[in-house]
Amino acid sequence: MFAGVDIGGTTTQVVLCDDDLTVLDRAGTTTPAASGGQAMIDAALGVLAPLLRRTPGRLIGAGVGAAGVVDTAVGRILVASDSFSGWSGFPVTAAVEDALGVPAFLDNDVNAFLRGEVSGGAVRGEPDVLGIALGTGVGGALWAGGRLFAGPHGAAGEIGHIPGFGDLPCTCGGRGHLETLASGRSIGARFADRTGRRLTAREVADAAAYGDEDALEVYRAAGAGLARAVVMTAGLVDITTVVIGGGVSRAWHLLEPVVRAELAEEPPVSSHPVRLVRARLGADAVPVGAAARARLETTGAYRGVSTQNS
Amino acid sequence: MFAGVDIGGTTTQVVLCDDDLTVLDRAGTTTPAASGGQAMIDAALGVLAPLLRRTPGRLIGAGVGAAGVVDTAVGRILVASDSFSGWSGFPVTAAVEDALGVPAFLDNDVNAFLRGEVSGGAVRGEPDVLGIALGTGVGGALWAGGRLFAGPHGAAGEIGHIPGFGDLPCTCGGRGHLETLASGRSIGARFADRTGRRLTAREVADAAAYGDEDALEVYRAAGAGLARAVVMTAGLVDITTVVIGGGVSRAWHLLEPVVRAELAEEPPVSSHPVRLVRARLGADAVPVGAAARARLETTGAYRGVSTQNS
Repeated sequence: MFAGVDIGGTTTQVVLCDDDLTVLDRAGTTTPAASGGQAMIDAALGVLAPLLRRTPGRLIGAGVGAAGVVDTAVGRILVASDSFSGWSGFPVTAAVEDALGVPAFLDNDVNAFLRGEVSGGAVRGEPDVLGIALGTGVGGALWAGGRLFAGPHGAAGEIGHIPGFGDLPCTCGGRGHLETLASGRSIGARFADRTGRRLTAREVADAAAYGDEDALEVYRAAGAGLARAVVMTAGLVDITTVVIGGGVSRAWHLLEPVVRAELAEEPPVSSHPVRLVRARLGADAVPVGAAARARLETTGAYRGVSTQNS
Repeated sequence: MFAGVDIGGTTTQVVLCDDDLTVLDRAGTTTPAASGGQAMIDAALGVLAPLLRRTPGRLIGAGVGAAGVVDTAVGRILVASDSFSGWSGFPVTAAVEDALGVPAFLDNDVNAFLRGEVSGGAVRGEPDVLGIALGTGVGGALWAGGRLFAGPHGAAGEIGHIPGFGDLPCTCGGRGHLETLASGRSIGARFADRTGRRLTAREVADAAAYGDEDALEVYRAAGAGLARAVVMTAGLVDITTVVIGGGVSRAWHLLEPVVRAELAEEPPVSSHPVRLVRARLGADAVPVGAAARARLETTGAYRGVSTQNS
């Protein structure tokens, strides 16, 4: 069995998978983000313990997905967001290995999300995929030639923070990034820009369902931004498929028609259309992807993809 | 020895290299682009023959770089531009192998340009590089993890034809591509838009040298577009270096300060600065890159990069 952990700013999700990455059991808890790295790992292991007790099988390895910049080789958090205390610099995998006695591995949560969807989700076994996670912000990850494409600094796939999407200021300090159009926070902000009313992204989607033109327009702009992100990535990295997940993707009925229409209007320069897929694993994607990394590293074989090991 | 051939729309360049990719001899001729594939190969081999006669050493393999979409596995032109007759579908490597009796290989010319600069030029041995060729159009190629990154359709690296660079119509049918700002043709067109005068890119550069504000502004826009292309690619593919070549890069004194200033203004989201390098091999880049491919394929080892074979 493989354990997968997703340590988010608000909640921590834990899964136990068999060696086909089928989820055998899962549990969640509130992340004690203000209490430091050891408290966060203890909370995760605290909800994992009963799963391990009640599930027959031997634990082979554990994976952790975490927001922020992580050192995947050393298993340490490099840069964490302001919502965490005592997390930057924390040796995550060492703490998990001490507690569980099996090898542990750390991934950025968006990379884990994509690994989860490629390993056992909506794009299982596909070799060339862009993953977009529409949460509070916009995260991105690349799968190329059947493996995670991380780049020399582990910074590849940052589709949420490249220019070319208008000129609005982004939370990162840049301008004109996809995150200014398609993140949960931005959908609320763009709706407030138009109406003066402050709603959550989900409330804006509800308003759109009632035909509110401002709400519809905000989601249209998000969908157009997503389509542009796909065309850019297709031109630069020649992906075959994009998988979109995260909370904002619950408004798939609003986003999908716009993305499809824009992609039909402006196909990639290669003229190969990109397949648009909604993520399937929901909250399981990150922990399943983390477990998939543990499976990959401990068995040396990645069974989700036939041609190349990763 | 390895032979390298660059079959361009106007001229054909041939080099003969030793196994360190040092150019031993070179020659050029006019491309008989209207006379069909066999005539074009015959012309190239016609200028290669005297080089082979007068250079001591044994020919091991030959590489060909050609504009357009090529099938690198089969060695055939898939899609050629209108300036060629009888070139689409032509079995290039078979014709070269028949004539020379050594293995031959075909690459897209921009990929060959980047392979040349990585193998023996300005970015020798660097593993993660974006190559931009500023010619009549704008070509791009990616080197990632020490190898050419071609993508599943061989279409990766097309930095000239992704959106996000304004809204001008592009020759490819799209809008807002880098090619509308930074190609030789576009520099002439943008200058004509501002002044009504039709000059070549080189003449616009000359005007800029005399302080012509319109000419300076056209090159400023080209440099800003190049900087944006670098930031996009750094965010998506996490390159460490960009190498810029092609005829328009002769105006390096106009482009470089703008690109550097813009990159300082808007660093990549990874916060790792990207090294900006001018191509060094000039007209040798494509044929040397083609020869490097032949060396790679015939010896199974790529000596320009130490860590990974490609």
